[in-house]
Amino acid sequence: MIKPRTPPGVMELLPRDQIAFQRMLDTIRLTFERFGFLPVETPVMELSEVLLTKSGGETERQVYFVQSTGALEKSGEGLPELALRFDLTVPLARYVAEHEHELAFPFRRYQMQRVYRGERAQRGRFREFYQCDIDVIGKDALSIRHDAEIPAVIGAVFEALAIGDFTIQLNHRKLLRGYFEGLGIEGERQAAVLREIDKLDKRGQEAVAATLEGEGFGLAAETVAKLMAFSQVRSRGHEDALAKLAALGPGSVLFEEGRDELREVLQRLKAMGVAESRYAVNLSIARGLDYYTGMVYETTLDAHPQIGSICSGGRYDNLASHYTKSKLPGVGISIGLTRLFWQLREAGIVATAESSVDALVTLLDDADLDHALALSQQLRAAGLNVETQLEPRKLAKQLQYADRAGIRFVVIRGGDEAARGVVAVKDLRRGEQFEAAEADLARTLLVEREQWRAVGSSSN
Amino acid sequence: MIKPRTPPGVMELLPRDQIAFQRMLDTIRLTFERFGFLPVETPVMELSEVLLTKSGGETERQVYFVQSTGALEKSGEGLPELALRFDLTVPLARYVAEHEHELAFPFRRYQMQRVYRGERAQRGRFREFYQCDIDVIGKDALSIRHDAEIPAVIGAVFEALAIGDFTIQLNHRKLLRGYFEGLGIEGERQAAVLREIDKLDKRGQEAVAATLEGEGFGLAAETVAKLMAFSQVRSRGHEDALAKLAALGPGSVLFEEGRDELREVLQRLKAMGVAESRYAVNLSIARGLDYYTGMVYETTLDAHPQIGSICSGGRYDNLASHYTKSKLPGVGISIGLTRLFWQLREAGIVATAESSVDALVTLLDDADLDHALALSQQLRAAGLNVETQLEPRKLAKQLQYADRAGIRFVVIRGGDEAARGVVAVKDLRRGEQFEAAEADLARTLLVEREQWRAVGSSSN
Repeated sequence: MIKPRTPPGVMELLPRDQIAFQRMLDTIRLTFERFGFLPVETPVMELSEVLLTKSGGETERQVYFVQSTGALEKSGEGLPELALRFDLTVPLARYVAEHEHELAFPFRRYQMQRVYRGERAQRGRFREFYQCDIDVIGKDALSIRHDAEIPAVIGAVFEALAIGDFTIQLNHRKLLRGYFEGLGIEGERQAAVLREIDKLDKRGQEAVAATLEGEGFGLAAETVAKLMAFSQVRSRGHEDALAKLAALGPGSVLFEEGRDELREVLQRLKAMGVAESRYAVNLSIARGLDYYTGMVYETTLDAHPQIGSICSGGRYDNLASHYTKSKLPGVGISIGLTRLFWQLREAGIVATAESSVDALVTLLDDADLDHALALSQQLRAAGLNVETQLEPRKLAKQLQYADRAGIRFVVIRGGDEAARGVVAVKDLRRGEQFEAAEADLARTLLVEREQWRAVGSSSN
Repeated sequence: MIKPRTPPGVMELLPRDQIAFQRMLDTIRLTFERFGFLPVETPVMELSEVLLTKSGGETERQVYFVQSTGALEKSGEGLPELALRFDLTVPLARYVAEHEHELAFPFRRYQMQRVYRGERAQRGRFREFYQCDIDVIGKDALSIRHDAEIPAVIGAVFEALAIGDFTIQLNHRKLLRGYFEGLGIEGERQAAVLREIDKLDKRGQEAVAATLEGEGFGLAAETVAKLMAFSQVRSRGHEDALAKLAALGPGSVLFEEGRDELREVLQRLKAMGVAESRYAVNLSIARGLDYYTGMVYETTLDAHPQIGSICSGGRYDNLASHYTKSKLPGVGISIGLTRLFWQLREAGIVATAESSVDALVTLLDDADLDHALALSQQLRAAGLNVETQLEPRKLAKQLQYADRAGIRFVVIRGGDEAARGVVAVKDLRRGEQFEAAEADLARTLLVEREQWRAVGSSSN
């Protein structure tokens, strides 16, 4: 006998939690599709040579390699031929370069699949997790207007997920770099300072200031003070965002480019009707990766700042330089849904879902089975998810089962009801019972379900 | 520069094909949920020790092993710790045994995920492919009534997929084994004969008969003739199925058990209103695996028998004997969707889908951008999937783009329309153009879309 268990670092859910998770996935996908993003799925394994284009750094990424039984026996030299993807960006680059002449640009794709990282086993760290990504890829050029649509998508996703108030934090790498230039911080040092600024949330102002004044950087106290003041800038509301940007005063060409683009993003967000409480300029957002070159985004839950950013991304200059000579600038974001779901459960923000099963058709007398089967099919044809009790049990047992499973409606047809052509329905959610003519049952339950959904979504 | 390419044996789709594939996945899932099946997802990698419980046979299954960079360096002894799942049945067994005390039985689950097999690279053979499975798992016992519901689910799935007329072939292992007993074929030889019968479709009657009369089996010509006649039995329609079963005459206890259960399945299918053209008794269906012990199912497309079974499964005695002492009988089926999709495309049965994007809001004049953004959001809020043209281009270019992308509605607002508060809509599907007041646009498009869906589904 072998002990049944999953490997460490994966999230496996019981059905009611899986239903809650699936609803989040569905909501995100629906919203991505609302904005005209197209679905892409890529294989979980890529050729190692293609996946690991950058020399070095692979071990940091803790890549998982894949070998079939045969290859395992022959192994020994070099890396295995196959590896599991560690994000959805490298596969996107490979996909766009491979299918460049079959795609229309700007290419808007969403991808929601699992990725793999050999992380150190630790609570809340996952080796297999979902990423839900959107990217817009241009050919040669891509208008800043796409960067403006991205936060509108983020806003729509988190409105629809209804997990609480949130703020999309906006910044621009050119604004940051232009400001650094003005302080005389150039070249390599710029990237290093950016990485320190990115740690402000985790390390706090004092620690970061100390590092910047310390040996490695050796910045003047006055310069560091300016950097700290700059990175403290946060806006509240649309007009305040514009005012805060204006108050920064004039800067370098790079600085002005960044400010102009950030202003355009703000303007378009307003045109799209995104509530101004949902976005803010935050000049401390740097996104450590060297990858980003323009707009950068982070999203936080107002009541749970400790969770950190739940959706991040930005603009990059060239997606696929390893695979094609074409210049492919892009802008995109990613939601790490496995970790987010885990955090939301830890924080008590997502509760156990009602079942995906709408109704249980009970069975009290074995002779009624064929009738119960036919009635169930009638409800299914109308669009309801139905489980049929296939063997008679005590009604109390069947009710208890439905209650534990989170099934809302229990349909009961005893001798008395049968004689009158009606069924009794127990609504376990409301704790009510009512009768319906059999012919009307599907319509009645559908109306109840829709009302409940309407109530459910407006109360969030 | 590295050539961007996928490993051999995987299916990667361009967006319009991905949309068609996604619609099939959605349809299958919706139907599984209609019948009250609950979602389960398991990690793609399992502990090798847990996954590969059966000694031997692993190499046949061509398992992929997984190693992180660190493990790779230390490797050498024994099998790697992790392996990719090669089906969804072993993970289900592990899941049910692991969560036995948290699940309600009978446990009805669906799982639609990718599985991995190191198949020989060959056209139409995949190393990564989707399986869409349902299973019902009982504790200690499971009523035959669940076996009767399974073909109703298969029927509903393929009605909804609308890929042509199909037949669910039904048989029962006890009927087969009971008949063999009557011919004096017992024990080990029974399983061997079953495997030969299972090859009838591929090898043909003569070849299989020759094998059975040959040295290995040495069955009498008369016995083989009876086996061939028996396996030729096919029913057409419900009454014919019952008549064919009756015409088999009396048999062993095992035989009668099988026949009784098959009869009950037929009765319940009728009660559920499954069209009798959709199911048939076929006594040649054996399902080679020793695994199955009762009902067995295969499904074929009437116009494309060469595709073979597109949905198969059956009853098994004990799901998880490697992981638990509990007896867990079950019944289930599997659809190999990647291969099915590939075959349907090869056979010209699935065409390129219309886009998931319902409408393109065009942009003719840069000054109208904010208006186009607001109009797009209005349509999205009503439930339409909308892409906004963010930079002005010639209308002909925008129409061409929409046409190639398979977007149905193109919304145009020139100076004339703007002055009158209307927009022009080109319906690329119907080749028609009409005007709508801006305030009514969302409603108009939604009505058009619903009508089209109604037409689309009734014409299949």
